Amino acid sequence: TTPLVYKMVIEDAVKLDSPTLAERDEQTKREQGVTEASHMRLRMEKFVKEQQKEIVRALEQLDGTPFQVDEWQRKEGGGGVTCVLQEGKVFEKAGVGVSVVYGTLPKPAILKMRANHKNLVDSDDAIPDSLEFFAAGLSLIAHPRNPMAPTVHLNYRYFETAKPDGSSGAWWFGGGSDLTPSYLFEEDAIQFHKSLKEVCDAHDKNYYTRFKRWCDEYFYNKHRGESRGIGGIFFDDLDETVKDKEDTFAFIQDGLKSFVPTYIPIMNRRKDMPFTDKEKEWQQLRRGKYVEFNLVHDRGTAFGLNTPGARVESILMSMPLTASWKYMHEPEPNSREARLVEVLKNPKEWV
Amino acid sequence: TTPLVYKMVIEDAVKLDSPTLAERDEQTKREQGVTEASHMRLRMEKFVKEQQKEIVRALEQLDGTPFQVDEWQRKEGGGGVTCVLQEGKVFEKAGVGVSVVYGTLPKPAILKMRANHKNLVDSDDAIPDSLEFFAAGLSLIAHPRNPMAPTVHLNYRYFETAKPDGSSGAWWFGGGSDLTPSYLFEEDAIQFHKSLKEVCDAHDKNYYTRFKRWCDEYFYNKHRGESRGIGGIFFDDLDETVKDKEDTFAFIQDGLKSFVPTYIPIMNRRKDMPFTDKEKEWQQLRRGKYVEFNLVHDRGTAFGLNTPGARVESILMSMPLTASWKYMHEPEPNSREARLVEVLKNPKEWV
Repeated sequence: TTPLVYKMVIEDAVKLDSPTLAERDEQTKREQGVTEASHMRLRMEKFVKEQQKEIVRALEQLDGTPFQVDEWQRKEGGGGVTCVLQEGKVFEKAGVGVSVVYGTLPKPAILKMRANHKNLVDSDDAIPDSLEFFAAGLSLIAHPRNPMAPTVHLNYRYFETAKPDGSSGAWWFGGGSDLTPSYLFEEDAIQFHKSLKEVCDAHDKNYYTRFKRWCDEYFYNKHRGESRGIGGIFFDDLDETVKDKEDTFAFIQDGLKSFVPTYIPIMNRRKDMPFTDKEKEWQQLRRGKYVEFNLVHDRGTAFGLNTPGARVESILMSMPLTASWKYMHEPEPNSREARLVEVLKNPKEWV
Repeated sequence: TTPLVYKMVIEDAVKLDSPTLAERDEQTKREQGVTEASHMRLRMEKFVKEQQKEIVRALEQLDGTPFQVDEWQRKEGGGGVTCVLQEGKVFEKAGVGVSVVYGTLPKPAILKMRANHKNLVDSDDAIPDSLEFFAAGLSLIAHPRNPMAPTVHLNYRYFETAKPDGSSGAWWFGGGSDLTPSYLFEEDAIQFHKSLKEVCDAHDKNYYTRFKRWCDEYFYNKHRGESRGIGGIFFDDLDETVKDKEDTFAFIQDGLKSFVPTYIPIMNRRKDMPFTDKEKEWQQLRRGKYVEFNLVHDRGTAFGLNTPGARVESILMSMPLTASWKYMHEPEPNSREARLVEVLKNPKEWV
């Protein structure tokens, strides 16, 4: 998924005499820096930017190819850094993006969000025409060359709104990570899920089961009747009704930090495995289905592409370098390809 | 676009004591055959099936590779024939599909359609819970190997509803054809548009201007700010408020029949032209944008993929064999690639 930041309808910031949230945050950062005592907006921004550097470094080291780094600004406040590695030795394409967005929610968006977040406004009688909001997130996708090596996707994000008087309104975290192999190695699936389960269990014994199911339901190509991949975790709307803000931030941090030590060992096992032209072709057909999910079903991508002024190249960094479609292609019965499809049609419990 | 037949929400036919439209039409065909005196449903079905054979024959002859022919049935009545040529000598992929669908429109679809078609029901007071409908269409797409040769798309369709007493309700025709080159040859664009203008002019002097603009507006990748290709014509809802049914059927026939004599000469000029790896790569990037249009913006495809029980492989026969996405790829200034993009951003008048 695309970070939540693209999901918001951005309107020109309302001109106010008082400074905007973006202006106030800029000033705080400049004068005081960011510490553990800072506001969550600043801590999340700092954290995802640090993690972006970590992840980019790890993937560059694995691949031996540098990422292209593009910084971009939004005129309403905030901006982002999009890092893309293209046609590398190990990866056909990998993208790691951070976005930090300050904007204004129009009334229809407020009304919609209020269903899940009671704290958005003080009372039902006083729904304002607009609300300032903040969103920060990191989004990652990596498509390896070797068909034995799995595509991976990850996204962690924080969202909050300001009340009309400038104080904090609602806040929540969302995110998750999922793996999409072209060939199934149970060992990889188990390691990936085990790592996510450990992160979940350290924070709440119910998280893994709930977020694993959520992932299976979300990353589902319903026109094909199959999952996009072998799953992982997915969650949204983690707010004070679920858990304390510090606890949830700690969970998000652990989730994001677990990526490099989980994915790199999987890649080290797979990146140099021998493969045939037929196997490469199968990978390309699976990529086609990845594109179908992202363009047809993924809410963030669809919304982003329909949002005027969105940075299309950052949204579509998730596209594979190449993909393929063949009419009526079916894997041979009992083949490794058929085994993968069977698991995609009937998601498994891996741990 | 996918034929209109996929745009309808299909529900299980209501069980009636009287024969369904599908059953009655089957009986008529069996007992009386199809002549110029037959109902438009039968004439349109016969016409698109004949044309499918003609077009398949012409493309097979050009390519030297036979199409795969799949006939399929719908349990509610009707069915289709999907013909696909894959990995041929001239075409990476070409699909020619006919669908004939008998079904039932649920009330929400009736309410929506009534906006454009007053004849759907007799009076606003008596909107039934469901209406039988018929739809028949031919859909075609061809993606050549040679980057100098243009992708082409075409679709012609007929739709009608029955009134609750079994008599004909509303009817309309829709369709069009458009060309998507990776490299612009003005001569091809002019020939393609000239042929369509001649067909249009023979039936109504206003058609071409109107339908050319409609095509430019519909086949528009709005997130990219560029047209899918260099256009053609597109129209929908051609009913008795526009022109007599026979006149419109004659226009549809002329449009469909003009395809082979227009596209084959263009292909003969382009299919064996020399090209470089770079040019092939550019074609693949353009294919990526074709995929984006079809999966993100095309109403028929999106609706089809979200319709339970749709034949997904027939809908997605429009996908290219292969496509590619590169982050931030921009053609060099003043290159042939840049010249194409310029025309896609500013649609031209070709005749």
